[in-house]
Amino acid sequence: MSPTAFIDELQNELQLTQYGQHPPELYDPIRYIMSLGGKRMRPLLTLMATYLFTDDWQKAVRPALAVEVFHNFTLMHDDIMDQAPLRRGHPTVHEKWNHNIAILSGDVMLVNAYQLLLNVEADKIKPIMARFTRTAAEVCEGQQMDMNFETRWDVTEAEYIEMIRLKTSVLLGYALELGGLIAGADDVTTRHLYEGGMNIGIGFQLKDDLLDVYGDPAKFGKQVGGDIIANKKTFLLIEALEQAKGTVKDELDSWLTRTEFDKAEKVQAVTAIYDQLGIRQIAESRINDYFARGFANFNEIRADADRKALLIQFAKQLVERES
Amino acid sequence: MSPTAFIDELQNELQLTQYGQHPPELYDPIRYIMSLGGKRMRPLLTLMATYLFTDDWQKAVRPALAVEVFHNFTLMHDDIMDQAPLRRGHPTVHEKWNHNIAILSGDVMLVNAYQLLLNVEADKIKPIMARFTRTAAEVCEGQQMDMNFETRWDVTEAEYIEMIRLKTSVLLGYALELGGLIAGADDVTTRHLYEGGMNIGIGFQLKDDLLDVYGDPAKFGKQVGGDIIANKKTFLLIEALEQAKGTVKDELDSWLTRTEFDKAEKVQAVTAIYDQLGIRQIAESRINDYFARGFANFNEIRADADRKALLIQFAKQLVERES
Repeated sequence: MSPTAFIDELQNELQLTQYGQHPPELYDPIRYIMSLGGKRMRPLLTLMATYLFTDDWQKAVRPALAVEVFHNFTLMHDDIMDQAPLRRGHPTVHEKWNHNIAILSGDVMLVNAYQLLLNVEADKIKPIMARFTRTAAEVCEGQQMDMNFETRWDVTEAEYIEMIRLKTSVLLGYALELGGLIAGADDVTTRHLYEGGMNIGIGFQLKDDLLDVYGDPAKFGKQVGGDIIANKKTFLLIEALEQAKGTVKDELDSWLTRTEFDKAEKVQAVTAIYDQLGIRQIAESRINDYFARGFANFNEIRADADRKALLIQFAKQLVERES
Repeated sequence: MSPTAFIDELQNELQLTQYGQHPPELYDPIRYIMSLGGKRMRPLLTLMATYLFTDDWQKAVRPALAVEVFHNFTLMHDDIMDQAPLRRGHPTVHEKWNHNIAILSGDVMLVNAYQLLLNVEADKIKPIMARFTRTAAEVCEGQQMDMNFETRWDVTEAEYIEMIRLKTSVLLGYALELGGLIAGADDVTTRHLYEGGMNIGIGFQLKDDLLDVYGDPAKFGKQVGGDIIANKKTFLLIEALEQAKGTVKDELDSWLTRTEFDKAEKVQAVTAIYDQLGIRQIAESRINDYFARGFANFNEIRADADRKALLIQFAKQLVERES
């Protein structure tokens, strides 16, 4: 079995998924955002987790898509809240249609996610639904924390990590846990799957912050330093704000409050401050720590060695990404 | 058993319901909108339906609240879309907090509704969830149709009734169906409950349109003619637009397009057009028709006569309301 087979089956089922028909203003935006692509990382994790314990991984395809539809629902609503004009290089739903349609279409996507999730064996619905519901609430909590952070300058490292854990990592954890639940894995195993996914997810998100500043411009794909230009409260900035003192603190504050500046100059100056404070090393240490915890969680799982290797190999790709 | 016992228990459970704690910006708006009151008509219908078939109606209390929380979620998001400043005489959530909080808090309310709905026996979760999910999607469809109608002048009576059926009546139907499902009623019975609730709901909504124009000002509570002043596409206006011809049509159009007018004069003039076209009689005929269908559905249900009388009595109060 190769990840390609999983991806092919997911794409196939995505093509077949009917979100609804009438009125088209409600359902066209769902088809649109789902067609913009993405790595389909979350449903892929679900299928790999199911395959750890059973050959019948295909029964996990539709519930796996519930996680993908839920993820895209959060993108649709987050884009309204962030006033984002583009998503994966295309106009966001509220830009292409309007705000009201993006609100309502997102609402029905959340309902669609539940509908897809109902495609599991009857005796498994309750735990699968309960854990999904808890996770969905946590994702909303993370998004609210993220919005709260925008107007705060005293966010601690611990608060920041809790925010990314809720906003993005618990859903990666749930994607794996769901695969285990569908396959009938025991509680200890689904716990390892969940925590493994969550830890890898936190490391993944921290790496995102790191790559923005220290990524290879040839590989990164986005403008290096974009977060610095926008004063985005990343792990690096929060850590620097916690560590900086005296003149270094004054210089950092001055860059953060300037409304007119040369972008390249600001990126260079703030990066120099990060370097001076050893922020890169702190970030790398945290990232390695979360990745190590994640792989330790996976190692605890008792399953066929080849199938486990497939999941670990996929997680390694996420960990080693440079864009 | 009296409806008071049901209401007391619902209020009691509402007090105990934890929607979530952190961050407060996410959960305070939920507690706020749920505290604004309302008739709690939907969960009351659920309890009455459960009580038709079992003494243990208390097991329906928490899932019944799922319907109430879902209803209030739709109010929170509809108020954003309609830019409504007030809800039950108090500032709407997007006014009291802001748009983003109203979006996200609504999202987590929808998740909370699912969480409450999980409080049913394991073997009943699948049908209860599946029918809730279908209903929730339909409510969104109705809201989108309603928004589409705002810019259309050729809405037909059939389209209008389908819109109110989806936007408001299917949830009343589901509230009753849910009570039947929790009590273990058979498919034919839950179908009668659903259709009875839906038909009463359509009549109820049409009566809302009628009362705006023909209600007794002393009893109505709102300004009589508010819908006329706002050019709201009610059953009466849609019917008048379908029926009016020649000079009557010209006069109606002229009132609909005027940007400056005396409010009382417009209400009087448009009401006179409705009178001339016999719109009141058409509306009353449709209302009576849907109410009759609803009571016919209820009459088909085989249950204890006293308990059925309680439900029918409650439905009659809805039907005979004058505000």
